[in-house]
Amino acid sequence: MKYLCRIEFEFPRDMGGEEIAAYRARETVYVHDLQRSGAMESLFRVVGENANYSILDVESNDRLHEILTGLPMYPFMTISTTALATHPNSLR
Amino acid sequence: MKYLCRIEFEFPRDMGGEEIAAYRARETVYVHDLQRSGAMESLFRVVGENANYSILDVESNDRLHEILTGLPMYPFMTISTTALATHPNSLR
Amino acid sequence: MKYLCRIEFEFPRDMGGEEIAAYRARETVYVHDLQRSGAMESLFRVVGENANYSILDVESNDRLHEILTGLPMYPFMTISTTALATHPNSLR
Amino acid sequence: MKYLCRIEFEFPRDMGGEEIAAYRARETVYVHDLQRSGAMESLFRVVGENANYSILDVESNDRLHEILTGLPMYPFMTISTTALATHPNSLR
Amino acid sequence: MKYLCRIEFEFPRDMGGEEIAAYRARETVYVHDLQRSGAMESLFRVVGENANYSILDVESNDRLHEILTGLPMYPFMTISTTALATHPNSLR
Amino acid sequence: MKYLCRIEFEFPRDMGGEEIAAYRARETVYVHDLQRSGAMESLFRVVGENANYSILDVESNDRLHEILTGLPMYPFMTISTTALATHPNSLR
Amino acid sequence: MKYLCRIEFEFPRDMGGEEIAAYRARETVYVHDLQRSGAMESLFRVVGENANYSILDVESNDRLHEILTGLPMYPFMTISTTALATHPNSLR
Amino acid sequence: MKYLCRIEFEFPRDMGGEEIAAYRARETVYVHDLQRSGAMESLFRVVGENANYSILDVESNDRLHEILTGLPMYPFMTISTTALATHPNSLR
Amino acid sequence: MKYLCRIEFEFPRDMGGEEIAAYRARETVYVHDLQRSGAMESLFRVVGENANYSILDVESNDRLHEILTGLPMYPFMTISTTALATHPNSLR
Amino acid sequence: MKYLCRIEFEFPRDMGGEEIAAYRARETVYVHDLQRSGAMESLFRVVGENANYSILDVESNDRLHEILTGLPMYPFMTISTTALATHPNSLR
Repeated sequence: MKYLCRIEFEFPRDMGGEEIAAYRARETVYVHDLQRSGAMESLFRVVGENANYSILDVESNDRLHEILTGLPMYPFMTISTTALATHPNSLR
Repeated sequence: MKYLCRIEFEFPRDMGGEEIAAYRARETVYVHDLQRSGAMESLFRVVGENANYSILDVESNDRLHEILTGLPMYPFMTISTTALATHPNSLR
Repeated sequence: MKYLCRIEFEFPRDMGGEEIAAYRARETVYVHDLQRSGAMESLFRVVGENANYSILDVESNDRLHEILTGLPMYPFMTISTTALATHPNSLR
Repeated sequence: MKYLCRIEFEFPRDMGGEEIAAYRARETVYVHDLQRSGAMESLFRVVGENANYSILDVESNDRLHEILTGLPMYPFMTISTTALATHPNSLR
Repeated sequence: MKYLCRIEFEFPRDMGGEEIAAYRARETVYVHDLQRSGAMESLFRVVGENANYSILDVESNDRLHEILTGLPMYPFMTISTTALATHPNSLR
Repeated sequence: MKYLCRIEFEFPRDMGGEEIAAYRARETVYVHDLQRSGAMESLFRVVGENANYSILDVESNDRLHEILTGLPMYPFMTISTTALATHPNSLR
Repeated sequence: MKYLCRIEFEFPRDMGGEEIAAYRARETVYVHDLQRSGAMESLFRVVGENANYSILDVESNDRLHEILTGLPMYPFMTISTTALATHPNSLR
Repeated sequence: MKYLCRIEFEFPRDMGGEEIAAYRARETVYVHDLQRSGAMESLFRVVGENANYSILDVESNDRLHEILTGLPMYPFMTISTTALATHPNSLR
Repeated sequence: MKYLCRIEFEFPRDMGGEEIAAYRARETVYVHDLQRSGAMESLFRVVGENANYSILDVESNDRLHEILTGLPMYPFMTISTTALATHPNSLR
Repeated sequence: MKYLCRIEFEFPRDMGGEEIAAYRARETVYVHDLQRSGAMESLFRVVGENANYSILDVESNDRLHEILTGLPMYPFMTISTTALATHPNSLR
């Protein structure tokens, strides 16, 4: 079951570079795991913005909520989700 | 080079069922070709709306414009496009 | 799996009263069935508007899309959907 | 008499974890009471957002205002309310 | 129990002057009755717009919905409603 | 001459309880005076929000501006004003 | 007492050139009168749009409403009005 | 050449009264000069808001930008500008 | 003096292909002239939309208004204009 | 391949004048380089705003993202990008 998520993020101005780097490192591990498990089908950066789009493939709304709120950088994110259905013209 | 396109469509109220069916049939062929050629990476319907999201993979803005305005149902569509960049955490 | 749907509807100005009544009658049957089957948990009218909110409980995004696009009055509706997760404070 | 409330919340960045936990604990008790008394019919989390939707069932606008402003986390909430009417197709 | 309603109206371009006058006459009678009964506390026109604001005082959301959808010009109106609570500083 | 004002207010997070109470007390006196003088015809709280609506009845735009900017809590308010005209169907 | 009005206008697609010219001619006379009487202080076209801004100077909201709804092209206009107060730094 | 500028301003919460007064005094001198030179044709306060509208009359976009960014209170302002053309019905 | 114009266009549904072609042909001639004269510095299509952006370089707001309203397809366009100033970092 | 970028910028209130000057100096060098290399075709300031528009000419979305996120003032910027296609009427 697919969902499109637009995620914007913004670190607090007063957060130190090391703390940011630590958050980013944890985020990378978490997002790599999501991709390897198949839960995150694709991930793109929006050109010139602190934002990304990703397609997630999970079995339920609850599982999606668990994944999104578990993102290490979740406290600094604003997420909006669109539920997707199979398109009759999709060949996949 | 990837782009996210949100496409909404609406046929005129007074268009007959046969004409709509003909448009849809041509759209299916066109969109299948885009997928087979690799230009359209994925295609999803938005739940409960006359709208879809697709990820396109083309070599230039001009090629994308050519593809989108060539959609058989283009006259009945409203399209908004987001240029995407490679995400450093993407494994693909 | 729950979803909140806001549905606005508007019949074409030139549609006759009988045709509208027929649409409404079919809508009533369809929506009663949804409630009896448990797919539509609740249904409310927005005060003073041609709009309603409903909570749907279905097993997938695809099933929700099928239900919504199958609404007899779907051609005259504008629908927006919010995917819902279980709230930790919910007693149900 | 039913109302749909969308509630977004955001704790101040500099609030300590213990204080947040205390607020959350009080919120849980308060919201459980609302559900047991029948004033809160249902409660859902919005997927991936610090937001929830709830259906409240109270006897007046004043009572609803009292309930909402009495939420322990009210100082950190943004609430928008939609007055609901009985839908003629509702079986409940 | 008070509500603030903003009502915009627009007659179809092709509606004849007599028909419009008839609608307006029925609207006047209906709105006078609402005021005499106390259900409509006040009524104002927005300067330069086909819109008005009114304060309604009714016993329930359902009664308000019945009143609003019963307005003779309802088919040509767009209504948005705000539920009001007693203000602690109000002397009335 | 009537105006509809929507007023939202928000005290700074770091303002102490005593200072807020003092502002509120001054606001109450000021708003009572406005009502007794007839300048403020009615005053309502928006359900669940730090916002209110009021109908003001003053002789000029300048007088209204003087009244609004004189509100003790004005520094913490966001105000939007709609100029109202007499409605032909109003019985008052 | 001053007001800023933004007025957008759009003639129906099917209105003939002569009828439009007649409306425009009446509008010119009406607006010239408003300027000569001092009720319309200034009038500007928005570059590239079917819209204008004007400053009106009248004694009441009701008089402004009468003037605006009396504009010959009023049925084809969308008007939004901002009530203005004397600026303490204005030398006029 | 005329422009309509809407200017909103907001001093930082922690700025002292004396500093604000100094800014305001410099603003008054600057704006008086603009009016005397003919560059600022008119200036109005928006009722109940920390905002004003002014009509400026300058020879170029660059000159307007120089004037606006030279406003003493510019660092605390949000400005939006509309380019105006001569209206054919204007008598001035 | 530079301006950025965003122009959206939409032909009426019932306009015949020949009439549209005639409008387009006249538009091409007009826009070529603007470019040769230096009044239109650049012109771009928005990918996938019936919209374009252009940079115009003219001596006044009035001249810009004359040019824009003179576009053959102006009756089918929606135009929004941003006045531009010289950027201190521009090398041109 | 062309893109239109709208860039708004805002330095933190508490940033010192020297630090701002240093950022600005680095920004000037960077933007001069972009222009000399041909990657930035044009650059304009929006009149009266801390915002600019620029036309960029680069070979890919990824290269554009690299350029934009490399702007020295990027941490203080909000950027929105529009992908542009060749306009058939453009003479360049």
